[in-house]
Amino acid sequence: MTAILQNYAVDRWTAPSEGLADIASAIDGRVVARLSSRGLDFGSMVRHARTVGGPALRRLTFHQRADLLKALALYLSERKEPLYALAADTGATRRDNLIDIDGGLGTLFAYASRGRRELPSERFVVEGGVEPLSKGGSFVGLHVLTPLTGVAVHINAFNFPCWGMLEKLAPAILAGVPVITKPASATAYVAEALVRLITESGILPEGSLQFIAGGTGDLLDHLTGQDLVAFTGSIATSEKLRNHPAISRNAVRFVAERDSLNAAVLGPDATPDTPEFDLFVREVVREMTAKAGQKCTAIRRVLVPRALENDVIAALGKRLSGLEIGDPRQESVRMGPLVSTAQREDVRAAIAELATEAEIVVGDPAPGSANYGAPGGAFLAPVLLRCTDPARARKVHSVEAFGPVATVIAYDGLDQAVELVGRGEGSLVASIYTHDDAVADALVFGLAPFHGRLLVLDRDCAKESTGHGSPLPGLVHGGPGRAGGGEELGGIRGVHHYLQRTALQGSPARLAALTRGWIKGAPAPVPATHPFRRNYDEIQVGETVETASRTITIADIEHFAGFTGDAFYAHMDEAAAKANPFFPGRVAHGYLILSFAAGLFVDPAPGPLLANYGLDDLRFLKPVSPGDSIRVRLTVKRKTAARKPEYGEVRWDVEVFNQDDETVARYDLLTMSARPVAA
Amino acid sequence: MTAILQNYAVDRWTAPSEGLADIASAIDGRVVARLSSRGLDFGSMVRHARTVGGPALRRLTFHQRADLLKALALYLSERKEPLYALAADTGATRRDNLIDIDGGLGTLFAYASRGRRELPSERFVVEGGVEPLSKGGSFVGLHVLTPLTGVAVHINAFNFPCWGMLEKLAPAILAGVPVITKPASATAYVAEALVRLITESGILPEGSLQFIAGGTGDLLDHLTGQDLVAFTGSIATSEKLRNHPAISRNAVRFVAERDSLNAAVLGPDATPDTPEFDLFVREVVREMTAKAGQKCTAIRRVLVPRALENDVIAALGKRLSGLEIGDPRQESVRMGPLVSTAQREDVRAAIAELATEAEIVVGDPAPGSANYGAPGGAFLAPVLLRCTDPARARKVHSVEAFGPVATVIAYDGLDQAVELVGRGEGSLVASIYTHDDAVADALVFGLAPFHGRLLVLDRDCAKESTGHGSPLPGLVHGGPGRAGGGEELGGIRGVHHYLQRTALQGSPARLAALTRGWIKGAPAPVPATHPFRRNYDEIQVGETVETASRTITIADIEHFAGFTGDAFYAHMDEAAAKANPFFPGRVAHGYLILSFAAGLFVDPAPGPLLANYGLDDLRFLKPVSPGDSIRVRLTVKRKTAARKPEYGEVRWDVEVFNQDDETVARYDLLTMSARPVAA
Repeated sequence: MTAILQNYAVDRWTAPSEGLADIASAIDGRVVARLSSRGLDFGSMVRHARTVGGPALRRLTFHQRADLLKALALYLSERKEPLYALAADTGATRRDNLIDIDGGLGTLFAYASRGRRELPSERFVVEGGVEPLSKGGSFVGLHVLTPLTGVAVHINAFNFPCWGMLEKLAPAILAGVPVITKPASATAYVAEALVRLITESGILPEGSLQFIAGGTGDLLDHLTGQDLVAFTGSIATSEKLRNHPAISRNAVRFVAERDSLNAAVLGPDATPDTPEFDLFVREVVREMTAKAGQKCTAIRRVLVPRALENDVIAALGKRLSGLEIGDPRQESVRMGPLVSTAQREDVRAAIAELATEAEIVVGDPAPGSANYGAPGGAFLAPVLLRCTDPARARKVHSVEAFGPVATVIAYDGLDQAVELVGRGEGSLVASIYTHDDAVADALVFGLAPFHGRLLVLDRDCAKESTGHGSPLPGLVHGGPGRAGGGEELGGIRGVHHYLQRTALQGSPARLAALTRGWIKGAPAPVPATHPFRRNYDEIQVGETVETASRTITIADIEHFAGFTGDAFYAHMDEAAAKANPFFPGRVAHGYLILSFAAGLFVDPAPGPLLANYGLDDLRFLKPVSPGDSIRVRLTVKRKTAARKPEYGEVRWDVEVFNQDDETVARYDLLTMSARPVAA
Repeated sequence: MTAILQNYAVDRWTAPSEGLADIASAIDGRVVARLSSRGLDFGSMVRHARTVGGPALRRLTFHQRADLLKALALYLSERKEPLYALAADTGATRRDNLIDIDGGLGTLFAYASRGRRELPSERFVVEGGVEPLSKGGSFVGLHVLTPLTGVAVHINAFNFPCWGMLEKLAPAILAGVPVITKPASATAYVAEALVRLITESGILPEGSLQFIAGGTGDLLDHLTGQDLVAFTGSIATSEKLRNHPAISRNAVRFVAERDSLNAAVLGPDATPDTPEFDLFVREVVREMTAKAGQKCTAIRRVLVPRALENDVIAALGKRLSGLEIGDPRQESVRMGPLVSTAQREDVRAAIAELATEAEIVVGDPAPGSANYGAPGGAFLAPVLLRCTDPARARKVHSVEAFGPVATVIAYDGLDQAVELVGRGEGSLVASIYTHDDAVADALVFGLAPFHGRLLVLDRDCAKESTGHGSPLPGLVHGGPGRAGGGEELGGIRGVHHYLQRTALQGSPARLAALTRGWIKGAPAPVPATHPFRRNYDEIQVGETVETASRTITIADIEHFAGFTGDAFYAHMDEAAAKANPFFPGRVAHGYLILSFAAGLFVDPAPGPLLANYGLDDLRFLKPVSPGDSIRVRLTVKRKTAARKPEYGEVRWDVEVFNQDDETVARYDLLTMSARPVAA
């Protein structure tokens, strides 16, 4: 029996009854599922996300949302095998599924971990430092990031039903924004199975995920400036969405990842006797054939020095012709079919366009030229073209054949290589194969403005390289111009798309209270008990220690030099120190100031203070001469609960003054303080 | 004689001869200038920017571009008086001109200074840290920002011909992107005078600034994904630009600042006997009348607790009726005319719309109701409305009367205040008047997702506050939804719009060479001479010092404790240290490790090393027990030329190891090293 895909709307799975469209297997053309979104009330889905999902997510801190992602990633990891089986009918080999399914889970894990490490245990982010806005210091500014109160609409491409969904979902959920996700029809049955696992897990709060198998109806009409659309697909669809009246009028955030004619550029130094030549050939073949070339990041343009053109074509031809193509469920098969016969026709049409500027040197796209798998399957052998007149060609830079197809383009000189790649008008990624500094420099800085990612592959990194085609959670994925101008991933950058940046202005006391941190100028009360004697839960932000003062003598400096071995002339040689542009004569060691400062503020007896684990942003602002005395002001700047319940991190603002109340040093001190743990 | 405004295209001033349109004085309606862009070859302007201006700017470093901005700001500051005189005919009082002219110059100065301080002396920015991408460390990533290779098209509003141009120009030039700027016609003669000063200065490189007085013709048809459009104006124009086929198809970056119904919210605690009530009344009046209310950031919605509605209306009425309106050239005049009689008609029409949901409580917009200035002038007295049914009203949240007009809206409870402000669907700024923590918290976090800027005005910051309506160079200016979803300024954030972010992947050696910095895993050669003995110009990034090792004894720890006074139990009390979750027993002080490390790596004799001026990112990673020995590896991580030619900053990566080669501490050390200065 053919599965009818259900939609998940307003926290209920519902089966569509009319307007059903068939989805065919890539392997043999049999109908594997049917789908329709007819009858869905898209307005109520948007309302549900706004009124139920958003508030539930925003009640959680970033750390709590990160924990949801981790739980979800673990849950799915244990249940992923059925997804592999389902995905075979999309044409995916086991290796392709590693990218899609395991890659998607890896992205969830990565965002869970980054959310814990790189975001605060709050519901907002303080971005950047305090901006002084007045001479007297009573008026300051800072920026906060808070979640949008709307919904994220995610519209995905057919090629990665799992990764595509999860790489968009993870940053949105971490940001605190609910999601309505819509897969491409051709592989929607894999996406539906994934969403079923997610909803069965019960891990995400109600209203935080909804799923549409089929068209989006009037969904976009309901969007406002608090919503976001993230789209992966063709330029044509992207333009339609972007110019939708509601999106345009309401300035709905729109993140697009579209067509991209990614290039691989062989450096002139990478002759056939170098490891880089082999890496290049292997990478081009891998990118042409992984996922049968149906990857947004696949290599479409193969740029080679004219002198190496024949060598490259020969090497690629040899590897491509040895490739086993067939049923993706068979272990030995390296490349399965395209996703559908319609897709294969699109690719053939694109090849025909390319062939007006390039000759086919490997493969034959003609129907019946090769006979792989079942008769109804969407198989197509790899096709390599050679651009006949690179200086004039235009289509090889603009027609994306979304299949196992690439064009070799010979260049004369690095400037021309840069110019030719630029004709692609913006791509997701390019890779560069060289072991030469000057070549790498010219190509990287020439290509950077046109790309979201650049890989320089050489003998030094090849063993561990993740390759040209792999977007990674920590690096931006997206590109300018033709590639859509959007950005996804990039670590926490990908979360920022779902947050509104707001500049706050007010008194230091007000901004300190709002952001749960201390700011210079905010109240700094001195409590009766030394804060080192108070546990993490008792310590209050803003609490201050004002120490006694201590005079630093020439004997101290000489003693310290002798003891530590640091006999630097600025401390030990009056004439040399005087000749130095920064010092009036011999001065105390910076480390002596730090050490004496600690001696002044430390409360020595055992207590809740556990450790000093670091310092940040230490600056020595004024020299300390023999005879000067120093004192310290230590203020609790921020508290951050650790993952373990036994202690928390306390960040202190430390200011060291001289006898004239001038600041001689300033830094952040980082300590761990114990928490009272219930017995 | 009436001035005919010229266009500045391809580095030439040219006078238009046909299609001239008149610009009337706001004061008396006489024609003050005529303009047309007919006959301009917009394609050649774009090409000129791309082929001449862009390359010239990109040859400079960020610091060099910052220096251009500073020179320009100084040049213009000495020549600004004629701009004041010209601007009177736009209706601007001297106080209004302070915002426009001096505010614009202040923005130039601010970007000059930030460019020097916050950007590198390179042609690219390394953003964020190194991303480890492999277990073995041979494959890593990082992000760089490089200038777009296209042109920035700046389309400005009529209200701030100087500030509007300069606040867009400064970040673009600093980024290295040439500009084509187009003022609104009504005040284009002030903009033209400013551009004349800029071109006469000869400070900016050829091709980096072009000027269009009049329509943009087919300019946008020439744009690609390497270009950017920044627009300030109405939603209707913004939509037309944003959906232009070239912009949409090529994903041209589009930054919009559009309609905004900014709110001022009086807290329930701010009763008439509080300073906050007075601040509120003064701020509302100031925002209604400065620039005759023709500010994108002006207060349009005046939200007050229902109980205070009558008090507020009475207080505002009193102040507004005492206001002197008239010829802006007269010192005593507080408010001049609107920019044109057409603008006055637009405002009257908007008031009529508002009046369907609100009653006029101060002022009378009817023609002939008041008689200020010359007969042909565009004068309009301030109009205050009172919303009659706030729960149902819609137009008071969507119709922007761009003049001296605001509507009082009473709210019941903070939740409703947040909900009502949100009906504006996104604004540039809101201000909050309260001295109560809970009120500030509820309003700030309730309103943040809908705003680019929030001011909390109270008795603590009032004296130095820059006010509700002032965008500042260091804070973002822009807002979501109706306000356009764009962002400008915000310090270096405003420069990022003109840069492409690219993730680079490769070996540590490759990424280190590309970014002129050292990365862990890149080559770290040990030179024959200690780098402290080499001057700034001789020191090479990557050079390393490997020190001898030193054993830390219990006697050292006790001696250090006695000497510094830091007798913290973890160093001095074996039982207490053991009970601590981080330590195996007594351990060395972190400051002792730092001090001994310096003793190991310092080269004491006088030489080019001048000073240690700080430390960054110090982390103690493993405790050091008595009997352990430490050694240090010190590597040149980055060099940064200082403004003075006598020395430069050197950032060192410092890693301290124990006898088992485990890292016990890691930090960045910051030093100044002398440069050889030509005699």
